[in-house]
Amino acid sequence: MDVPSATSRWPVRLARMGFRFEVLKTDPSGARLGRLTTPHGVIDTPAFMPVGTAGTVKGLTQQALTDLGVQILLSNTYHLYLRPGHETIRRLGGLHRFMAWPGAILTDSGGFQVFSMANLRKLTDDGVVFRSHLDGSEHFLTPEKAIEIQQALGSDIAMVLDECIEYPAERERAAAAMKRTTGWAERSREYACANGGASITPGQVLFGIVQGGAYADLRRDSARQIVDLDFPGYAIGGLAVGEPHALTCEMTALTAAELPADRPRYLMGVGLPEQIADYVACGIDMMDCVLPTRNARNGCLFTSAGKIHIKNARYAEDPGPLDERCSCMVCRTYSRAYLRHLYLANEILASILNSHHNVAFFLDIMGKIRQAIAFGDLAGFSSQLQAHLEAGQP
Amino acid sequence: MDVPSATSRWPVRLARMGFRFEVLKTDPSGARLGRLTTPHGVIDTPAFMPVGTAGTVKGLTQQALTDLGVQILLSNTYHLYLRPGHETIRRLGGLHRFMAWPGAILTDSGGFQVFSMANLRKLTDDGVVFRSHLDGSEHFLTPEKAIEIQQALGSDIAMVLDECIEYPAERERAAAAMKRTTGWAERSREYACANGGASITPGQVLFGIVQGGAYADLRRDSARQIVDLDFPGYAIGGLAVGEPHALTCEMTALTAAELPADRPRYLMGVGLPEQIADYVACGIDMMDCVLPTRNARNGCLFTSAGKIHIKNARYAEDPGPLDERCSCMVCRTYSRAYLRHLYLANEILASILNSHHNVAFFLDIMGKIRQAIAFGDLAGFSSQLQAHLEAGQP
Repeated sequence: MDVPSATSRWPVRLARMGFRFEVLKTDPSGARLGRLTTPHGVIDTPAFMPVGTAGTVKGLTQQALTDLGVQILLSNTYHLYLRPGHETIRRLGGLHRFMAWPGAILTDSGGFQVFSMANLRKLTDDGVVFRSHLDGSEHFLTPEKAIEIQQALGSDIAMVLDECIEYPAERERAAAAMKRTTGWAERSREYACANGGASITPGQVLFGIVQGGAYADLRRDSARQIVDLDFPGYAIGGLAVGEPHALTCEMTALTAAELPADRPRYLMGVGLPEQIADYVACGIDMMDCVLPTRNARNGCLFTSAGKIHIKNARYAEDPGPLDERCSCMVCRTYSRAYLRHLYLANEILASILNSHHNVAFFLDIMGKIRQAIAFGDLAGFSSQLQAHLEAGQP
Repeated sequence: MDVPSATSRWPVRLARMGFRFEVLKTDPSGARLGRLTTPHGVIDTPAFMPVGTAGTVKGLTQQALTDLGVQILLSNTYHLYLRPGHETIRRLGGLHRFMAWPGAILTDSGGFQVFSMANLRKLTDDGVVFRSHLDGSEHFLTPEKAIEIQQALGSDIAMVLDECIEYPAERERAAAAMKRTTGWAERSREYACANGGASITPGQVLFGIVQGGAYADLRRDSARQIVDLDFPGYAIGGLAVGEPHALTCEMTALTAAELPADRPRYLMGVGLPEQIADYVACGIDMMDCVLPTRNARNGCLFTSAGKIHIKNARYAEDPGPLDERCSCMVCRTYSRAYLRHLYLANEILASILNSHHNVAFFLDIMGKIRQAIAFGDLAGFSSQLQAHLEAGQP
């Protein structure tokens, strides 16, 4: 079905130009197999989005991303706003053209980085004043400004500015942040409706974000408030920030239950290979995580038999592939011994190959999850994956 | 013609298995178009060999090297001996298998690095004692040991250990180093003849190296002594170490004139794009240089209009390709503005793309040089290239 159904409330350019979400099948677990259509291509869901912080997925060329089958990646508003600047990117034709990436792009609002990386100076209902982690310069980020920046970048999917809190957080603090998030979502929606044409990508859509900490009732309230604003898609934010996995799943499931079935659901900033299927079973359609690329640069590699620290001496003369069950370019071509050598010698190729494999591994898991949903047996796949991962652990 | 013609003096396994050099055409300038056949493929000469110091050409995957048309690369005995160790590589099936590179490999003897990077402890006619730049451990490198290591690596072309001196150097010093180099070449040849079967690559050949500093008569004497030992190929070492380009050319030309026409000639460690054709005109068939990859990592890019420092503010919003006359993947895909952003953000992709372009640029020049020789007009190509490069300079 087309999204949103309540098109009358959205400007046509925002709601209809190129954006479409269809649920093709639902698994007994609650997992959904779907198809998301954007101005820059179709995305099979559930989808894992590699993170391209500063307009590049670290260690991978855009050709490698294409070869890996990446259909959508995430890029960071905060980083691109500070460097090279969103107006520079606008003048260069938008982020797709700037980074020569033909596929879809989702941009975050910059909020998460402002709350975690920048030097936070002042937070009010108006917005947030912060100092750049690069040069200490002062900036003022508002819900409207976050949209304006993302319109200049021209991502396919933009995110509203939300207030991210830590875990654990007092109920009062969670409630206040949730309230502010709703207020900001209203302003974001208004600004986007009034200025939809300003985006360098016609058909750019805006997703709302549900907050509420680890409080079930706050999560439900937040979801209802955000859904009431009628976004073409919904994200669940503020999870996987230190709480136990079971709690993440609990909050995700009860939030997802409040979201309309015909809109895509995006769980922000997750997850571990052994957790991905759990989130999908909660009805999640999209997720992103820096783990595959960040861990790769630290020599931590994901395999079907668990994590490998490639610097380990046991791999010094290991002629085998990183992961015998993986068919990626790295596993087809190079040995563990060579990968260990590259890592110890601090060679650029270590980052290239490790990133390539880890991203391939995450995408492969997600591909298998989609296949399992198509066969109606995600639970079977999950227990099989879990058994492999546990068997491989020392 | 097959090489060497005086096969009776060489073990068959060394001289005949897979190694062959043919001069296809000679240009009025003295440049030669040729074809070098090795156990790992055919190399069109004159050839530029990218440098893969530690078993990887920095910033490039082996697939990228293949895509770039690289037929032969150079790897460093000193580095691989120290890490991961030549016996490790031997046990893993040799350097080709270790690094998953199907093309040809030339290994240096390690001498140049011992004289330039390591902590040199003692130099005698026996060999050289040095301390590792990695961990300070002490090692003893002899002509025989250099062969043994290269046999474990299994390169297609191994080099004899020689004594490298600085420029300028006193005549006495140059003469002594030349004499020692000849002695070491004799021992290398003997060891290789006696132990040819020990190489992990059947058909591995050994090149001699001419020294003699910047003294014409010493160069001629050295060439005659080394040629008298009848190697399947000859290198000219100890040049491009700080002397004027004209002097490099003079020494190269007079040395090349002493070398047999039916063997490949390799000028070590050169050169700049504007100098390559000069060396080819001296009758050089092979050369190697770290410049394209090292400069790439420092944001210094070679183009048909001269060098570009990509961090320059003038490229901040430049949507054009790095080099309008270049058809490499980078120039076809990315803008100067994006390359500048990647460099300033210290992204891995900066090193990847910059290295890719610079190596493509050097290979492209060499390809055009081969074409010019085929047309019998290397001089015409040289002056055209020079004009372009000069026109592009500020």
